[in-house]
Amino acid sequence: MPPASPRRLHLNAFLMNAGHHDAAWRHPRTQPERVTDRRYFQELAQTAERGKLDSIFFADGLALWGKVEHNALGGFEPLTLLSALATVTEHIGLIATVSTTFNEPFHTARKFASLDHLSGGRAGWNIVTSGTVDEARNFGRDEHLEHGLRYDRAREFVDVATKLWDSWEDDAVLLDRERGIYADLGRVRPVDHRGEHFAVQGPLNVPRSPQGHPLLVQAGSSEDGKEFAAQYAEAVFTAQQTLADGQSFYKDVKNRLARYGRAEDDLKILPGICPVIGSTEAEARALEQELTDLQVPEYGLAQLSGMLGTDLTGLPLDGPLPALPEERDINGNKSRFTLVAELARRDGLTLRELIARLGGGRGHRVFAGTPEQIADQLEAWFTQGAADGFNVMPPYLPGGLEDFVDHVVPILQDRGLFRTEYTGRTLREHYGLPRPAGRRARPVTEGQPA
Amino acid sequence: MPPASPRRLHLNAFLMNAGHHDAAWRHPRTQPERVTDRRYFQELAQTAERGKLDSIFFADGLALWGKVEHNALGGFEPLTLLSALATVTEHIGLIATVSTTFNEPFHTARKFASLDHLSGGRAGWNIVTSGTVDEARNFGRDEHLEHGLRYDRAREFVDVATKLWDSWEDDAVLLDRERGIYADLGRVRPVDHRGEHFAVQGPLNVPRSPQGHPLLVQAGSSEDGKEFAAQYAEAVFTAQQTLADGQSFYKDVKNRLARYGRAEDDLKILPGICPVIGSTEAEARALEQELTDLQVPEYGLAQLSGMLGTDLTGLPLDGPLPALPEERDINGNKSRFTLVAELARRDGLTLRELIARLGGGRGHRVFAGTPEQIADQLEAWFTQGAADGFNVMPPYLPGGLEDFVDHVVPILQDRGLFRTEYTGRTLREHYGLPRPAGRRARPVTEGQPA
Repeated sequence: MPPASPRRLHLNAFLMNAGHHDAAWRHPRTQPERVTDRRYFQELAQTAERGKLDSIFFADGLALWGKVEHNALGGFEPLTLLSALATVTEHIGLIATVSTTFNEPFHTARKFASLDHLSGGRAGWNIVTSGTVDEARNFGRDEHLEHGLRYDRAREFVDVATKLWDSWEDDAVLLDRERGIYADLGRVRPVDHRGEHFAVQGPLNVPRSPQGHPLLVQAGSSEDGKEFAAQYAEAVFTAQQTLADGQSFYKDVKNRLARYGRAEDDLKILPGICPVIGSTEAEARALEQELTDLQVPEYGLAQLSGMLGTDLTGLPLDGPLPALPEERDINGNKSRFTLVAELARRDGLTLRELIARLGGGRGHRVFAGTPEQIADQLEAWFTQGAADGFNVMPPYLPGGLEDFVDHVVPILQDRGLFRTEYTGRTLREHYGLPRPAGRRARPVTEGQPA
Repeated sequence: MPPASPRRLHLNAFLMNAGHHDAAWRHPRTQPERVTDRRYFQELAQTAERGKLDSIFFADGLALWGKVEHNALGGFEPLTLLSALATVTEHIGLIATVSTTFNEPFHTARKFASLDHLSGGRAGWNIVTSGTVDEARNFGRDEHLEHGLRYDRAREFVDVATKLWDSWEDDAVLLDRERGIYADLGRVRPVDHRGEHFAVQGPLNVPRSPQGHPLLVQAGSSEDGKEFAAQYAEAVFTAQQTLADGQSFYKDVKNRLARYGRAEDDLKILPGICPVIGSTEAEARALEQELTDLQVPEYGLAQLSGMLGTDLTGLPLDGPLPALPEERDINGNKSRFTLVAELARRDGLTLRELIARLGGGRGHRVFAGTPEQIADQLEAWFTQGAADGFNVMPPYLPGGLEDFVDHVVPILQDRGLFRTEYTGRTLREHYGLPRPAGRRARPVTEGQPA
């Protein structure tokens, strides 16, 4: 065992209904009947907090696709859910996906400022640009915005949101009862943003929040995505199948930071891992096989069709993949397309084998083993330049998270790689990230600022 | 005292930062430093629940105006706040304002469905069309939508939201682990709405919620507003200054229901009342005067300018109102304009007197007296055809709510006018309103429904 290092890794629990494995809901250890019960999510959040994890995270999409036939899909509006969890947890960070393509900066900035106040500084925003035409069609558009244009809009969106968060100085609220001055208008200012995609007057109608800004997270690993991350993100969720791929991604993204005047430590890279845990390696592998055996091939084929931008319906499951388009022709998740295509090519997988490989993590790395073996993997990636921490994606819930917290976390703690108590109060403090300073105020005029 | 009646009144606690009086935050009994602390709102919600009230309600606006200098304005995104309160209450309904002018039906339907699940069937939506240009300017528009057009959009918005709530049948989730069937696609269907204002494919990505639809509340009392209420609303918040006005409004709205095939009991009318409570009448009046003395005239004048669509800046406070526009030329809150103009005219008020009269309830009725006197007023309006219940607007918080719960509610209970225990489980059950039946499903096609 290598010596304890003063550098500590970060752990985020990525929570998803019955678990990340697409057949989890069919497994007898899961509770899919509880995925609309807040107590279920409360228990999960409390389990993650018991493990002293940095944060929990809910992904999100703005459409339900037809494959709800075969999986426990759909879910609560994530800020609504996270607020409900804020009141039953004390320390753990609360991160949710919100799309910049189908929202307005005023609403989004306000929701995160609200959650940050309500949670005492524990809000995080996973910024996504959304990837499907089904989402566009729930918001009055027939087609999805082109990939590059989505990122243009995302940049402007985050700029506006940031201006709104900073539209109140930290000390704007005076509460001078004697003089009748509630807030100092010199420290609350309009935003007066007029850009390509948005025109927003401001100021926000919520005072500046405990963290100043929520933690900004990003999860796209395309060229556009990596550049966006380097400019804005403070944590990155990424899918990497091998240590070498992880190292290369890590170096690539960290190297981009300097051009935005940022240091390497300003952004934490958190590859996903779906840990299939057993008390022996054989037990872990048996559990993995059990989950694979529960997969519904039509579901896997439909999901794969989506990832590959190619209709695979009716192709023989035991045959190879058909010819695929180029990444440049993919308008959804470009990096996931390339990862999956590369995985199939490299390992020469049939459709059935590929569906099995993707079942646990949708392209994220799946690793089956004992707690010790899993800790070894995390330590290797962390100490060998592939990760600042991990996005932990339990294959089934709640047991898969409980096993991680009760059996893997203590090993990481024993090795000095992970905190044994929370030392910070806010999500930013958990990740060792600074609180953004407010901008200097300029006066807001009475009535309607110009 | 009249005999106890089997008909019971309904009580909603309208919560607002330091209280409804615009000078409340300056009063030593309030806690304006806590209006960004969730525990403050939790305590208020728990107090209302201790009083067995039907619901709590948060109003909302999508802009901060310059007058934040003199009042504790601004606040949390209301669904985010209500979810945080859902976890610390058991029975009380949770109602929030969401604008149909600056939102998308998919997001709004989803947030209320989420809150309804998270709260076990306690969500209510106060449907507003928003009234100010400052809000428009936070959403890329230079001017506010015209009043009639806002209501056109509101009707279509609610239609789409309703279709989305009904896009899952109640029994759509099968959870057939053996066959791998999570949901029955025949019971989850697209919405395929294409209208004047919205195009929404659906289905919603949240299963049908405990109440089916949230309770639909409406608060506009203009002609457009009353007609909208008659068609859609299940509860109406309204500002009425006198019993006669209240009776006339009550009769007017109830009479409109038949043309939409609805019965009088399908809609509950809840006039606002700002109860200034004292153990003697003199004590109540002294408290009212104390609050009046704390008013900041510039604040009152600015708020009055907004209500009257007329810039009153610089006019002598002890002089009369200037000539006012006609209601038809008001593009904000038409009914509030008329109420305030009428109040000033009828009672021959100076600007200063009008500001004092509006300080407690912004046009809602203010009544100062003992608990007994307040109960008498509520009983009179309830038994004489002006109210099915009341929107209780404590002038200051938390004390004004505590006094109402501890001293007025027991009198209403003793008179048999109000419940002594919750008998229902959902907000609809508290108000004696039925759960809407789901619509018959038609099949969703695989992939992208046409």
